[in-house]
Amino acid sequence: MSNTISEHNPVQNAAEPAETQSLKSHSLAYVEDSDSGIRVPVTQIALEPSPGGKQNAPLQVYRTAGPGSDPVVGLPAFRSAWIEERADTANYAGRERNLLDDGKSALRRGKASAEWKGSRPVPRRALAGQRVTQMHYARAGVITPEMRFVAVRENCDVELVRSEVAAGRAIIPVNINHPESEPMIIGKAFLVKINANIGNSAVTSSIAEEVDKMQWATQWGADTVMDLSTGDDIHTTREWLIRNSPVPIGTVPIYQALEKVNGEANDLTWEIFRDTVIEQCEQGVDYMTIHAGVLLRYVPLSANRVTGIVSRGGAIMAGWCLAHHQENFLYTHFDELCEIFAQYDVAFSLGDGLRPGSIADANDAAQFAELDTLAELTARAWDYDVQVMVEGPGHIPFHLVRENVERQQELCKGAPFYTLGPLVTDIAPGYDHITSAIGATEIARYGTAMLCYVTPKEHLGLPNKDDVKTGVITYKIAAHAADLAKGHPGASERDDALSKARFEFRWRDQFALSLDPVTAESFHDETLPAEPAKTAHFCSMCGPKFCSMRISQDIRDEYGSADSQAAIAEMVGGMREKSQEFLASGGKVYLPELEVPARA
Amino acid sequence: MSNTISEHNPVQNAAEPAETQSLKSHSLAYVEDSDSGIRVPVTQIALEPSPGGKQNAPLQVYRTAGPGSDPVVGLPAFRSAWIEERADTANYAGRERNLLDDGKSALRRGKASAEWKGSRPVPRRALAGQRVTQMHYARAGVITPEMRFVAVRENCDVELVRSEVAAGRAIIPVNINHPESEPMIIGKAFLVKINANIGNSAVTSSIAEEVDKMQWATQWGADTVMDLSTGDDIHTTREWLIRNSPVPIGTVPIYQALEKVNGEANDLTWEIFRDTVIEQCEQGVDYMTIHAGVLLRYVPLSANRVTGIVSRGGAIMAGWCLAHHQENFLYTHFDELCEIFAQYDVAFSLGDGLRPGSIADANDAAQFAELDTLAELTARAWDYDVQVMVEGPGHIPFHLVRENVERQQELCKGAPFYTLGPLVTDIAPGYDHITSAIGATEIARYGTAMLCYVTPKEHLGLPNKDDVKTGVITYKIAAHAADLAKGHPGASERDDALSKARFEFRWRDQFALSLDPVTAESFHDETLPAEPAKTAHFCSMCGPKFCSMRISQDIRDEYGSADSQAAIAEMVGGMREKSQEFLASGGKVYLPELEVPARA
Repeated sequence: MSNTISEHNPVQNAAEPAETQSLKSHSLAYVEDSDSGIRVPVTQIALEPSPGGKQNAPLQVYRTAGPGSDPVVGLPAFRSAWIEERADTANYAGRERNLLDDGKSALRRGKASAEWKGSRPVPRRALAGQRVTQMHYARAGVITPEMRFVAVRENCDVELVRSEVAAGRAIIPVNINHPESEPMIIGKAFLVKINANIGNSAVTSSIAEEVDKMQWATQWGADTVMDLSTGDDIHTTREWLIRNSPVPIGTVPIYQALEKVNGEANDLTWEIFRDTVIEQCEQGVDYMTIHAGVLLRYVPLSANRVTGIVSRGGAIMAGWCLAHHQENFLYTHFDELCEIFAQYDVAFSLGDGLRPGSIADANDAAQFAELDTLAELTARAWDYDVQVMVEGPGHIPFHLVRENVERQQELCKGAPFYTLGPLVTDIAPGYDHITSAIGATEIARYGTAMLCYVTPKEHLGLPNKDDVKTGVITYKIAAHAADLAKGHPGASERDDALSKARFEFRWRDQFALSLDPVTAESFHDETLPAEPAKTAHFCSMCGPKFCSMRISQDIRDEYGSADSQAAIAEMVGGMREKSQEFLASGGKVYLPELEVPARA
Repeated sequence: MSNTISEHNPVQNAAEPAETQSLKSHSLAYVEDSDSGIRVPVTQIALEPSPGGKQNAPLQVYRTAGPGSDPVVGLPAFRSAWIEERADTANYAGRERNLLDDGKSALRRGKASAEWKGSRPVPRRALAGQRVTQMHYARAGVITPEMRFVAVRENCDVELVRSEVAAGRAIIPVNINHPESEPMIIGKAFLVKINANIGNSAVTSSIAEEVDKMQWATQWGADTVMDLSTGDDIHTTREWLIRNSPVPIGTVPIYQALEKVNGEANDLTWEIFRDTVIEQCEQGVDYMTIHAGVLLRYVPLSANRVTGIVSRGGAIMAGWCLAHHQENFLYTHFDELCEIFAQYDVAFSLGDGLRPGSIADANDAAQFAELDTLAELTARAWDYDVQVMVEGPGHIPFHLVRENVERQQELCKGAPFYTLGPLVTDIAPGYDHITSAIGATEIARYGTAMLCYVTPKEHLGLPNKDDVKTGVITYKIAAHAADLAKGHPGASERDDALSKARFEFRWRDQFALSLDPVTAESFHDETLPAEPAKTAHFCSMCGPKFCSMRISQDIRDEYGSADSQAAIAEMVGGMREKSQEFLASGGKVYLPELEVPARA
């Protein structure tokens, strides 16, 4: 397989605001798999020439934003042909629509449905007796177009993709009813991924807001999005999100099930839950959080914790177990769930309902008892060829973070770990994107495959659009820092390109190559707003009077040709003459004076 | 030594804005050393009772804010008596004031001096042949009041303080000419400290701004402040800062020396530098960054780096070495510097002029060659009983961070390490407080004693007051996370108190216990602004319909009395009856419905 880059005619992405010069140098391009002809979108960053005129090749970076869509129409179902070609699925009537799917309030129910202008897909499921999961294909030695797409995206051999999926060490969450999504892979052999949670109050007008938030999250780099909506129009909100989402959509179906019983956890039943799961499978949810590890006998282990049970799903199931004195129905019906998921290729995200909610509760008996059960459930899902990832904490002091991922990897035989942070201290509400990014980098370094973002509003309120962006960028930092630490091939390309641009005072390239060009440019403009400052060969740190970078350039001019320490030593030996030349030729770094003060 | 807490009559701190309810529960209190009577200020956080009425003792936390001062008058010189009592120093006329001290511009020079209303201290230095450093006293077995003050602050035995200072593994930066400062200690056996850099353009009006920025930084937790001012009124700006600063002040004297030669690095001389150092010793600078490790023969090692030399001081000295083809005068005159520092108790902060400016350059030959020299200089300073810390990088990928501190600790025989971040990726300008806090936590976990903050403006512009606060809070997080990871005694007290408050829905206590109560409260108010929401037993995460924390409280009520796993097992055995009781007694968590949606 050799990949060719279609540099000609890059398509401008409508979803990206073009408010700054920096984002204008971003464009949508495609990398093509020459074997299969599959084209994979990338973001291409055009670069200016270096001083002296040497051209810099544009940099292609991983792209999660998709091609952009009109919210009321949705994205093209570009994977439909791949799914149909396999001839192991068929359309069917689908579950009958229930008024309760959109909540209790008859006033608002389904109102948003009428606004939909896009296609109304007929659900599809496996033919009787078939399993249509990527894991099933991988184990059978079949290389799917989804795997090829992923291999191009990850710049790796497709056989690595197939073998990791076959072994359960990676998943490709691609519900056959979400053919709009671009395949991506979650596994420790690949780039670390991040998830953004959205979901809010669900009045008609806010459905478009949720779609906008999802697009916003993927524009900045979210690899998957979880829809945690509750309340009215829950079904329709999800429908709009899925039809517009270029990334896998995850949910926590117990939230919707709880709405169907009017918030009364004790009234939940397996039948209501099962019906909700099928509803969501038919819509195209790619992975679902299932809190099947909260066993009746584990519940009391949380009694003496500082913060008890902090997972909403965990608390719902713990409350149910206590009220009925019965084993968790998600556990007792787990095999049925596997059978359902295998028909749609929905992946499990095994929820950690007993995760610690404070560093005092980290790595305790309740948490690790549940992990033992999640390991058991992982193996059971694999018996059905169902893809699985396992959720992890939470709040963990820094020195105990590593143990979490190593224990999970060992017990769950390498099934991908998907963690929330973890937060390494409890004392900074308002800054928990930061407290958790610290733990996230550590846990990803040792093998966590996907990081669930935390926004600045964690513990305090609901994230707005700014918070979503801050959460995504912060987690791109953690994921990328872990990729660098893992020595992931090619991970440092963007760092090196940005640092080279910085050294050469290519300000616009420095902005364009950063994770958030808009913020980088606006911060620069606060101190040196004039347009000429963007081409100036100095910055506000040292100012124009004295510039470290310029001294360095002088040193490079003198000694940069040396290809060995011996050559350098010889040059230094002859440095007295050099210093005469240096002084004679000006020997100083001096530009017209501006009122710009210095920093360290 | 037993410490008593003077809880009576806590003094309200004038420097803290009282705009929110949360900060009103903060007050200045004192912990007294019963042996010496030394009183150490702490911030006391008053807490509300738990549900049920059980009182919660107020929490005392480490305080850097000092008592607050009027910028034109300064702080009381409370350490003067301690210094005088030692009878090893005397006042003297001091160096003659040079017009150049305040820069080149005759228009502005010294204007701010006239506004000063406080005392104009006469400089003090050691009597001939005396060394007046804390290291000198510690090595002689003398326990100073400064050491006692530190021991109370750190809640440790004063002998630990003395022995660590004697061994060079910790420093107490306390210039005898800065008697206003509250002694603090930097060493890996103690709490991890953070430094905030300030310093800006120096017109008269902005001197007050710089004092305000310094007070702002110490209010939020800066343990030391570096004044990196350049330009006009540089001497007077520093004077105002020192007279008002409750924390040690650090500088980079080569910056001022460069101003004295009109920005021409090649015109620098040892004599000009020496005069500048004495000027600053007499003013009361507590530690100085000295780039004595940038040796002539190391300069070419930077030639093929991606980002050359990024330290301003490093580049100045490299440029000087090249231009003159002479060895760095800071290196050749290092013993003279030691003799001067020993007379005032100024500590070295040995600058890492060749630190990497990109992850591509991390841990390279130039960086580690300089570190070898810094180790040699550390030993030389110790020969003069001069306190030393060693500066570290910079930009380092996460997996290479640990090697930096372990190598420094080994080579420099445990001398405190003082690092700038490090940043673990180069691709996030605008978010470098975060990229660097990740590396800072890792490097502090393995022994770095003080972290120099990085603000969101790093690489882009000059930090404003908001940036200073963000940088300080972000670094308090990193330092505290490292304290927790190191298992520092008592480090988790604040976490546990906050998590308990969170679990008990004591919202005001959760805000008050957080590093930034103002932000925590304002974020909460965005979603649930009404005052009753601050006493509500639910939050915006799950909303009032279903609450995880309440379920947990129910579990605790049922099983919380169990003091062993066996007792819990027995309880679970009898759980059928319990579940009947639970259902009979309501068995649900249900509050009046509000329009508040859910989150994971």
